[in-house]
Amino acid sequence: MERRAIRLLGLDPGLRSTGWGLIEVRGNRLSHVANGSVRSEAETDLPRRLVQLHDGLKAIIERYRPDWAAVEETFVNKNPGSTLKLGQARAIALLVPAQAGIAIAEYSPNLIKKSVVGGGHAEKEQIHAMVRVLLPGVAISGPDAADALAVAICHAHHAASRERWAGGRVLAGAAP
Amino acid sequence: MERRAIRLLGLDPGLRSTGWGLIEVRGNRLSHVANGSVRSEAETDLPRRLVQLHDGLKAIIERYRPDWAAVEETFVNKNPGSTLKLGQARAIALLVPAQAGIAIAEYSPNLIKKSVVGGGHAEKEQIHAMVRVLLPGVAISGPDAADALAVAICHAHHAASRERWAGGRVLAGAAP
Repeated sequence: MERRAIRLLGLDPGLRSTGWGLIEVRGNRLSHVANGSVRSEAETDLPRRLVQLHDGLKAIIERYRPDWAAVEETFVNKNPGSTLKLGQARAIALLVPAQAGIAIAEYSPNLIKKSVVGGGHAEKEQIHAMVRVLLPGVAISGPDAADALAVAICHAHHAASRERWAGGRVLAGAAP
Repeated sequence: MERRAIRLLGLDPGLRSTGWGLIEVRGNRLSHVANGSVRSEAETDLPRRLVQLHDGLKAIIERYRPDWAAVEETFVNKNPGSTLKLGQARAIALLVPAQAGIAIAEYSPNLIKKSVVGGGHAEKEQIHAMVRVLLPGVAISGPDAADALAVAICHAHHAASRERWAGGRVLAGAAP
């Protein structure tokens, strides 16, 4: 009996651009659904930029109805101003799926690299190349979307046996 | 002719507790409307804590319909983990009024102290005492709410002549 497909939404939070990538998992088969990035206008004030990110992510979740969201853990920067900005973008990336009642998991950049490439010290280019190998025929809209697809793939590998959650942290909700 | 009362909502963002304080300004008279804090449960996962803050602030804005929101500028901490948390709470404090179409201004802690006490180096206790003097009869629900009322008072002083916005930064929207 074939299992129901599970839809995973990977997210790579950023204030200027939050990457998103949607894949489907059926048994151990992955397939690409869609990817892109939600952007906020740099010349707009911060509160309205947050509204732009919120509305963009909400539209994607309403359109694709994922079962899970997986978010790349925020890199805590040495620069406090950058950390503050990232924290603001991350809040939106966590808020919107939580408002929709979607379970959320979080993965460190190193775990994502290991899941996708096999090693924790891969370059961005290697990761993006492997995303193309693992999702044949995918057209990737940009680097943020590629990172988001990598998070989704990482989540698929860990969700394959959803009883053990070695590595990733389930931030909200339970397996759907 | 008496001017229409303007309602100002002061906000002091924090992940555990976001203080809020609502005052009314009529000409140069201030009066207290309500104050309190929106809390998130520490034992809950982060995405749902952000939803709790979001829903709590949304309910206050829907209930009191302020004309302006004024937010205390986030203190960028030396500890990147704390800065990240503050950034997340701040995103919610900026997002919710912006979603409601309310103009938002931001003030530094020093400017708030100067507006309320007259000096930039006042202690918390002095500020809270002056809030009680400036809003006679006010019952303050806690320190976060007192800080939020201080931001609202600071905004009232600067909004008195809404043509000049010396000091504070208007983050979103325009004077209603």
